[in-house]
Amino acid sequence: MTEHLRNKGFVMSSPHPELLRLRDSIDNIDAALIHMLAERFRCTQAVGIYKATHDLPPADPSREEQQIARLRRLASDAKLDPDFAEKFLNFIVKEVIRHHEAIRQQKG
Amino acid sequence: MTEHLRNKGFVMSSPHPELLRLRDSIDNIDAALIHMLAERFRCTQAVGIYKATHDLPPADPSREEQQIARLRRLASDAKLDPDFAEKFLNFIVKEVIRHHEAIRQQKG
Repeated sequence: MTEHLRNKGFVMSSPHPELLRLRDSIDNIDAALIHMLAERFRCTQAVGIYKATHDLPPADPSREEQQIARLRRLASDAKLDPDFAEKFLNFIVKEVIRHHEAIRQQKG
Repeated sequence: MTEHLRNKGFVMSSPHPELLRLRDSIDNIDAALIHMLAERFRCTQAVGIYKATHDLPPADPSREEQQIARLRRLASDAKLDPDFAEKFLNFIVKEVIRHHEAIRQQKG
């Protein structure tokens, strides 16, 4: 079933309308996540350029420690598994450091 | 420097106020991401229960294919690396399937 037909209310003819309803919510959330991630990488890109210009190291373990503790706390309040929140941050930070090293190499 | 002091405007006394400003934005975005992820897992948890109840398989390759194509398109429009967006979805889906299998085991 296409998004177009779903938007026209044809969702009720599906054998699993509840599933489609949940998937529409997931799709909306995913669009929000992608846009927040795009904005986050704009910020970390600026951080990377700043660090390269001021000769600061790409990684900052004390900052990361603070971020992990804070995100675990936020996750717990939002009933999200704090271990998953930490894994998620590590996943993002790995990509950020890859970007920062590329910026550094371009500058160097 | 504590978050408290930063909020009081002491940020300007740092040797790197621009870096702190960017980090404050990143922290705000991360809080948004954590809350969106919490909501996404509430939806996928409901999907998992629905699938287990209606004896549907935990994974759905055709749905995932559609999600990947859509997120790559959204990422591209938002100037986010589409390969990263795909890696991100895979990262999330892996966790979701782990949850769905746990739900199925509890039901079975």
